[in-house]
Amino acid sequence: MSANGQKGTQTETQGSASARAGGRRQIMRSHARAIFQAGLAAVNPETCIRRVLRLEGVRLLAGDQAVALPQAGRVLVIGGGKASALMARAVEGLLGARIAGGVVVVKYGHGVALKRVQIREAAHPVPDDAGRGGAAAIFDLARQAGAEDLILCLISGGGSALLPLPVEGIDLKDKQAATGLLLASGATIHEINTIRKHLSRIKGGGLARAAAPARVVALILSDVVGDDLDVIASGPTVADPTTFGDGLRILSRCGLLEKVPPAVRRHFERGAAGEAAETPKPGDPLFDKVRNVLVGGNRDALLAAAKQARALGYNTVVLSSMLEGEAREAGRFISRVAAEARRSGNPVPLPACILCGGETTVTLRGGGRGGRNTELALAAALDIAGEDGILVLSAGTDGSDGPTDAAGAFADWKTLARARAAGLDAARFLEENDSYRFFDRLGDLLKTGPTRTNVMDLQIVLAVP
Amino acid sequence: MSANGQKGTQTETQGSASARAGGRRQIMRSHARAIFQAGLAAVNPETCIRRVLRLEGVRLLAGDQAVALPQAGRVLVIGGGKASALMARAVEGLLGARIAGGVVVVKYGHGVALKRVQIREAAHPVPDDAGRGGAAAIFDLARQAGAEDLILCLISGGGSALLPLPVEGIDLKDKQAATGLLLASGATIHEINTIRKHLSRIKGGGLARAAAPARVVALILSDVVGDDLDVIASGPTVADPTTFGDGLRILSRCGLLEKVPPAVRRHFERGAAGEAAETPKPGDPLFDKVRNVLVGGNRDALLAAAKQARALGYNTVVLSSMLEGEAREAGRFISRVAAEARRSGNPVPLPACILCGGETTVTLRGGGRGGRNTELALAAALDIAGEDGILVLSAGTDGSDGPTDAAGAFADWKTLARARAAGLDAARFLEENDSYRFFDRLGDLLKTGPTRTNVMDLQIVLAVP
Repeated sequence: MSANGQKGTQTETQGSASARAGGRRQIMRSHARAIFQAGLAAVNPETCIRRVLRLEGVRLLAGDQAVALPQAGRVLVIGGGKASALMARAVEGLLGARIAGGVVVVKYGHGVALKRVQIREAAHPVPDDAGRGGAAAIFDLARQAGAEDLILCLISGGGSALLPLPVEGIDLKDKQAATGLLLASGATIHEINTIRKHLSRIKGGGLARAAAPARVVALILSDVVGDDLDVIASGPTVADPTTFGDGLRILSRCGLLEKVPPAVRRHFERGAAGEAAETPKPGDPLFDKVRNVLVGGNRDALLAAAKQARALGYNTVVLSSMLEGEAREAGRFISRVAAEARRSGNPVPLPACILCGGETTVTLRGGGRGGRNTELALAAALDIAGEDGILVLSAGTDGSDGPTDAAGAFADWKTLARARAAGLDAARFLEENDSYRFFDRLGDLLKTGPTRTNVMDLQIVLAVP
Repeated sequence: MSANGQKGTQTETQGSASARAGGRRQIMRSHARAIFQAGLAAVNPETCIRRVLRLEGVRLLAGDQAVALPQAGRVLVIGGGKASALMARAVEGLLGARIAGGVVVVKYGHGVALKRVQIREAAHPVPDDAGRGGAAAIFDLARQAGAEDLILCLISGGGSALLPLPVEGIDLKDKQAATGLLLASGATIHEINTIRKHLSRIKGGGLARAAAPARVVALILSDVVGDDLDVIASGPTVADPTTFGDGLRILSRCGLLEKVPPAVRRHFERGAAGEAAETPKPGDPLFDKVRNVLVGGNRDALLAAAKQARALGYNTVVLSSMLEGEAREAGRFISRVAAEARRSGNPVPLPACILCGGETTVTLRGGGRGGRNTELALAAALDIAGEDGILVLSAGTDGSDGPTDAAGAFADWKTLARARAAGLDAARFLEENDSYRFFDRLGDLLKTGPTRTNVMDLQIVLAVP
């Protein structure tokens, strides 16, 4: 059934109108789910690798980059991140016996069995010794590679925590303590990354430096807003413009010079005095042999979702793949766009599909249970109550919304009335950041299980006559 | 100059590139101003009245409503609101000597000299005796009108404060105290209106009841999100579905039963016991002789702005005329839509114009000076820093943003760098809600003076190659 053809007739009774509303809600929900799944399918890590990576004779084409396969040397596969196991499987599928070996670290439960590349599992988001061991193995492989070798590096979201390898003299606990203090002090993600990159042997281009003089093709699946390559997994193969001096200024500005572990402060002071090695900088000739290729991100998911929505008959618009900010405010904003579509046919006429993506945040006020997607959906439910024919699905592409087992939730114009009938005060649940429980009680959670990919979140808003 | 044709050549020097960026910024700013002015022109109160109201022989056409001009009776003109003086001038221009008389109350400084309709000025937003006197005069005119008479009622934003006429036994101070307590307790606007309508002889359909048995055509310029007729100026000519019982429940829920002036509580208790007159309800036959006609609102301004933007060569999309929520979050959201346009041509390809309207709010954190529009623009400035070719103008259509003398402000990709060069810390100004001073120091405020209309705010976002 298409998005059209659901308009009721003048003659139907109250009862059948209500049944029709229920039917319409179910159809819209199945449409939203299909649109979400189409988005997911487009960022399946294997699909992404196959879309970007091709063999042409003795050349490997990665996007618009072409590199010669080694004649004498080896092809090695390394990397880490939540999606990197499936990325490795696709690479094995393409290169098979040409791969000499490799190690890729993924989150516990995300492993797959491969013939050539060893998949190791480790802890996320808090690193553990398994991750440290995997990171060391990868680092050593890179260091031992020669000028004849080609390294394929498979980077995806979570790679930062899954590949912990502190610089000499700093242990993992010191590094974590410093990161925790920065987070609590309200430092920006760029400031935190400046510190992290200077405490790691892998991040901030460290892995690329270890790999020199081998050639490196990094295939990167983005889980960050804006797809900045130096931010994804803290950029192991990307030049780092930040300095030890920047790091000292950040620690000082955040009032943390005296609070971070002494080894951390000492490291930055030594570095600023030229006594520790800087991260490799833009323009460093070592990057002449490095190719960083984005294989997918939130925008790919959104564009595939848009294609599916159009196929279902919706007039479709993509607002942004770069959504950030407070989840509830974003939920309200997109609800107002949908309400406008109902009234004036802007930004697109009914039946309308309005798509967004990115990663919002939740400012905790209460002690409830929920993630950013269910919080966004709950705010939307409050806003679209009574706006006949509007549905909002917000869900994480990794299948897990914050600390919950749901990917996200569905809200529509009937949600608030159904909640009221069930004795649930939606506004109160929102106040308590208890959005998971709210939608759980209504049976309106979307549960997908782990998807083995991660390109942040999608918001799918439908508005029908 | 159109929005295209501003792309630089490869051969230009740094210096001329910088001059070009300055030139491009100035051109974009003049485009944004022209788009805003086109929006304003469409909601000029005289334009709105002329668009909707026409004479056809002995019939007066108001939108899709037609009423016969009185043969024996009089045409009277009453009303109130910030835009009502110019509405009255347009009505005089159309009906001239057929108008027997009338009284319209506007804000101090907003009056115009008319021949048939007396324009009175009064205080806004805190009512004064002049408003009370004007309201009484209007109420008496309506009460004295007979079945042969036709009353044209000109309602616009601010009419609620400009036409204060409390019910018997309540004085203006009691009413204001109750409203103030409700505002402070976090009551919704619908809850506050429920109380206000039951404390007034004019609001909540009171003026229509006073006018019966005369015929009433109310011409309404909307200053509220969603254009709900019963909300604009508290709906003097619109049926009120709320009851004294609702009011008591609201006072109780907000913990105000003991705190409001005793006369207010007594009035609601008497009303709930059937001892005071309810507001007229939907279905009341008195409304058979009342026609409420929306003559304009935020959407009209947006659509006219969109037309102007297209004429300037921009691919244009209207996101919503119903924007609410936290100003800074809205500023961030629309910035992210513009950033997406730069990267992927969604929701519209460059050169792009993205339009929004509505009324956001500012949660006060600091003690600075600013309105919702300058706050939104400041948040946008922080978000689009370095996003080459993006400009955001947010401004109030009444020409006054909160408690300031500016309508709003311009932010663009250079704003943050220019602020830094001037020693201004933009993030700090935002923290302090000091957005007016920030843009004042940079010379980036938009000042229009009073526009004599009010359909809330417009956001105009431009993105060029």
